[in-house]
Amino acid sequence: MEFTIYLAGQIHDDWRSELREKAKKKGLSLNFVGPQENHERSDQIGEEILGEQPGKVFMDDAASDINNFRTELLLQKADAVIALFGESYKQWNTAMDAGIALKANKPLILIRPESLIHPLKELSNQANVTVETIDQALEVLAYVYE
Amino acid sequence: MEFTIYLAGQIHDDWRSELREKAKKKGLSLNFVGPQENHERSDQIGEEILGEQPGKVFMDDAASDINNFRTELLLQKADAVIALFGESYKQWNTAMDAGIALKANKPLILIRPESLIHPLKELSNQANVTVETIDQALEVLAYVYE
Amino acid sequence: MEFTIYLAGQIHDDWRSELREKAKKKGLSLNFVGPQENHERSDQIGEEILGEQPGKVFMDDAASDINNFRTELLLQKADAVIALFGESYKQWNTAMDAGIALKANKPLILIRPESLIHPLKELSNQANVTVETIDQALEVLAYVYE
Amino acid sequence: MEFTIYLAGQIHDDWRSELREKAKKKGLSLNFVGPQENHERSDQIGEEILGEQPGKVFMDDAASDINNFRTELLLQKADAVIALFGESYKQWNTAMDAGIALKANKPLILIRPESLIHPLKELSNQANVTVETIDQALEVLAYVYE
Amino acid sequence: MEFTIYLAGQIHDDWRSELREKAKKKGLSLNFVGPQENHERSDQIGEEILGEQPGKVFMDDAASDINNFRTELLLQKADAVIALFGESYKQWNTAMDAGIALKANKPLILIRPESLIHPLKELSNQANVTVETIDQALEVLAYVYE
Amino acid sequence: MEFTIYLAGQIHDDWRSELREKAKKKGLSLNFVGPQENHERSDQIGEEILGEQPGKVFMDDAASDINNFRTELLLQKADAVIALFGESYKQWNTAMDAGIALKANKPLILIRPESLIHPLKELSNQANVTVETIDQALEVLAYVYE
Amino acid sequence: MEFTIYLAGQIHDDWRSELREKAKKKGLSLNFVGPQENHERSDQIGEEILGEQPGKVFMDDAASDINNFRTELLLQKADAVIALFGESYKQWNTAMDAGIALKANKPLILIRPESLIHPLKELSNQANVTVETIDQALEVLAYVYE
Amino acid sequence: MEFTIYLAGQIHDDWRSELREKAKKKGLSLNFVGPQENHERSDQIGEEILGEQPGKVFMDDAASDINNFRTELLLQKADAVIALFGESYKQWNTAMDAGIALKANKPLILIRPESLIHPLKELSNQANVTVETIDQALEVLAYVYE
Repeated sequence: MEFTIYLAGQIHDDWRSELREKAKKKGLSLNFVGPQENHERSDQIGEEILGEQPGKVFMDDAASDINNFRTELLLQKADAVIALFGESYKQWNTAMDAGIALKANKPLILIRPESLIHPLKELSNQANVTVETIDQALEVLAYVYE
Repeated sequence: MEFTIYLAGQIHDDWRSELREKAKKKGLSLNFVGPQENHERSDQIGEEILGEQPGKVFMDDAASDINNFRTELLLQKADAVIALFGESYKQWNTAMDAGIALKANKPLILIRPESLIHPLKELSNQANVTVETIDQALEVLAYVYE
Repeated sequence: MEFTIYLAGQIHDDWRSELREKAKKKGLSLNFVGPQENHERSDQIGEEILGEQPGKVFMDDAASDINNFRTELLLQKADAVIALFGESYKQWNTAMDAGIALKANKPLILIRPESLIHPLKELSNQANVTVETIDQALEVLAYVYE
Repeated sequence: MEFTIYLAGQIHDDWRSELREKAKKKGLSLNFVGPQENHERSDQIGEEILGEQPGKVFMDDAASDINNFRTELLLQKADAVIALFGESYKQWNTAMDAGIALKANKPLILIRPESLIHPLKELSNQANVTVETIDQALEVLAYVYE
Repeated sequence: MEFTIYLAGQIHDDWRSELREKAKKKGLSLNFVGPQENHERSDQIGEEILGEQPGKVFMDDAASDINNFRTELLLQKADAVIALFGESYKQWNTAMDAGIALKANKPLILIRPESLIHPLKELSNQANVTVETIDQALEVLAYVYE
Repeated sequence: MEFTIYLAGQIHDDWRSELREKAKKKGLSLNFVGPQENHERSDQIGEEILGEQPGKVFMDDAASDINNFRTELLLQKADAVIALFGESYKQWNTAMDAGIALKANKPLILIRPESLIHPLKELSNQANVTVETIDQALEVLAYVYE
Repeated sequence: MEFTIYLAGQIHDDWRSELREKAKKKGLSLNFVGPQENHERSDQIGEEILGEQPGKVFMDDAASDINNFRTELLLQKADAVIALFGESYKQWNTAMDAGIALKANKPLILIRPESLIHPLKELSNQANVTVETIDQALEVLAYVYE
Repeated sequence: MEFTIYLAGQIHDDWRSELREKAKKKGLSLNFVGPQENHERSDQIGEEILGEQPGKVFMDDAASDINNFRTELLLQKADAVIALFGESYKQWNTAMDAGIALKANKPLILIRPESLIHPLKELSNQANVTVETIDQALEVLAYVYE
């Protein structure tokens, strides 16, 4: 049985590549989807497709049109969601995606460092499992196949 | 026709009181609900009801049990949601509540300062309306009664 | 038993007032809701609440933010929907509202002149009842109380 | 990952063929579905299967029975919807299909010429993305695969 | 606590009046809704509101438009459904209403004579309770108030 | 694209075999499912699996347990439903299955002889298409592939 | 704002009366519903309404018909559920009701003694809050009104 | 047509292996999923992935996080559920899983010994079929393929 996992979280470093490689090494039959991982491309996709916008607000909104289309399409295909939080960036879209996943009955794994226990306590409490590392998240997924 | 509005957002200042008073002055038939507004009470409610917990993580989780019960109960009663973001605090539960509201088909008004346009662009794009002040949010609600 | 009826359709003449008055005369216990009926107000509400926008497209989008918030909030409160089409105006939001009502399992009465039978045939076929006049629509509603 | 896209819109010209060919050239793994594209066949399918009807209204209704069966079956199989509007034809079924797609949580791309910004503003505001050309719509879909 | 009960079944005799009176005597706080109970009115309502139709099939279809609007509106307001079957009439709309009620998660009481056990076995098996008399159905409802 | 079609209706003659063979000849990529077609087996399956029951009522109920398990499992897998009515038998489970299909948003084709127009008018009015023969039902399905 | 709370659990002692009285003393605007609390009545209601059954299995099944009708009707009216477990009785219907409540998105408070932590760990983990006493459950409900 | 069946129940003996082997011998195209069947592993998985916990309650809760993630993921993939009860163990998670399955419209087969008729009567009454042996459950599944 193959599962599709949506990887919610920041797109400033390559945590998804690390996760995908480690999943591959474990031989897990998982199909990972997620947002555009090239940050610059993600920010500019609105103007690239829709043309120049009248200022920063509208450029951001145009990019979000297309990024949200992608997220909605892929999230609805997912069997489960991993949401990763780190110490940098505001990560409000990660929290929003997690909220959407919770209401859509997608089982949710939260990855967050110990330092973020307090501000993420309500989200952690609603997630199925909260872990601190990518390896732990993959151990949870591997457990489903045992 | 009376509407129930859930007020998602931080609980460190009295923005909800301000909003409730202004709604009253405008004569709007609105019933506001939301999280516990006493921050200390909110953080300690877990230990207050469930007894001492073995450390900070578990104290936070116990509080979240009860705060999330409250939020789930009141959010499902709400006809619409206002989510307010400011420049302080992590506000991840605000974003999570907004995500849940979106997926639950609750019309959503986002209040955020101009400085947060970029990090909230995906959430703003999915909200029905994004405004910058409490007064504007109330004008949106007042418009429904015109 | 009181019912709430959403009145979808153009806002260029006073067909809703006529309908409300006739319902009153019939003594029907109906509560009518619908879009902003002042056309100019409806078009300008975006800039009135959100401030000046950078051009017509953005002014329209800002107005739609607020008009769609109103529609979503009121439509979800409705027990049934009346969608009226006439020979003037594009009326695409009427058709969109009707589609949303159909998918949301709101019983739907379509009012349209004989001249529009062909272009409205798919919508008419999915509506519960298609009539040609406001009086007929009210007879359908009155029949529920017999 | 393959996606099924429902193509809502008029059936008087071959815009769907153009879109399908361009998607093929881009190498996108997309499966397109939609209404009957032969306009005469679409109008006459009622009488062709169900036999002669007592007049134009009933002939239209019989055709709609079968066209709506097709649309409902294919739309529910779709992962996303493209709705195209042009300057000709009433296109109310396009708007109704878009409304159904919105309520069924199918991500929606709207294609419309600049001239239709105002009458489509509510629909555009609810769609995930609004573009002006078929090429832009395909760029949005291609972006999901990046 | 008041409950609304939809009374599905034939409209050729006054079983609903009997049920309503008996409920009143028992002092049950129940609000009964159901189809038009005047059989002639029910059959002719299509032509009465929509005008003369081209033959019996179309007259029946016009009446069903309006009767189904009524049923859909009232059934969605109901907390539970009673479906009564007798030895006369085809009663396919009773069975269809029962099927709709089952899928809509409305608790269902089936009333049927002993002679119909075999042909109603699948429906009886899915109903919450199957009884043989109106009095028994009311005893079930009265039990909820104990 | 392959579709699964549930065939609701009586199990006293071989109309499903006829339909399956005709679909095969037309080259339609359809997968048909439905109830147990061996009538005796269907009536006795309860006692065959669960052992002797204390009388006819309980034997019927035991059979319905298993027949309803089968129907629920297969109906939820179906993309569309065909419900066939004839002049013999009570066929209440056909009407119940049709009601369940309607509420579950499964597109519905009704097959019924001209003689049953009046008693099936409400069901016919809610079905997507009503035809009189198996051949017509297959023409509707074939039309989806054009 | 008044809430309706379903009280799932055994019916062998008067814990519900205790809870209702304590809620009253606290002045909480709560409306409690639940199963029949007279155990003998609950076991015999099947035969009392439906007549003598052919043995214990069928008597139990008849009673369950009516008890499940009551539970389904009242549970769907509830805003939240309290499920109480004690050291006696099998209490499988309590666990089933809790499972139904979880899937129906009813916020759930679990009351269980310390001795049952291990066997109830999966249920406790899915409940919003787990407490050990009726007083604690009421403190959670009271907190919603703060 | 292949079906996925979730096997809810205790994990202290090898009833699932027996069921899987017997299904294989019957040549049924079934894919069985279920909880971790190694009891010790199931109890310790929390600490194994998440690290040492501050006591038994928290160790149990950590294990349940991960076991519930597995159950939620697999149960949503299942077409039907078998819930087996025996005379040993509390088996409350079996009853909870059955309740979740009922509300999620998964057809349910209950396996329980004659001795448990009374305490399981409400659950049995809501299940599609109740049998006493694994062989009978497989006969029910085999019947779907006839």
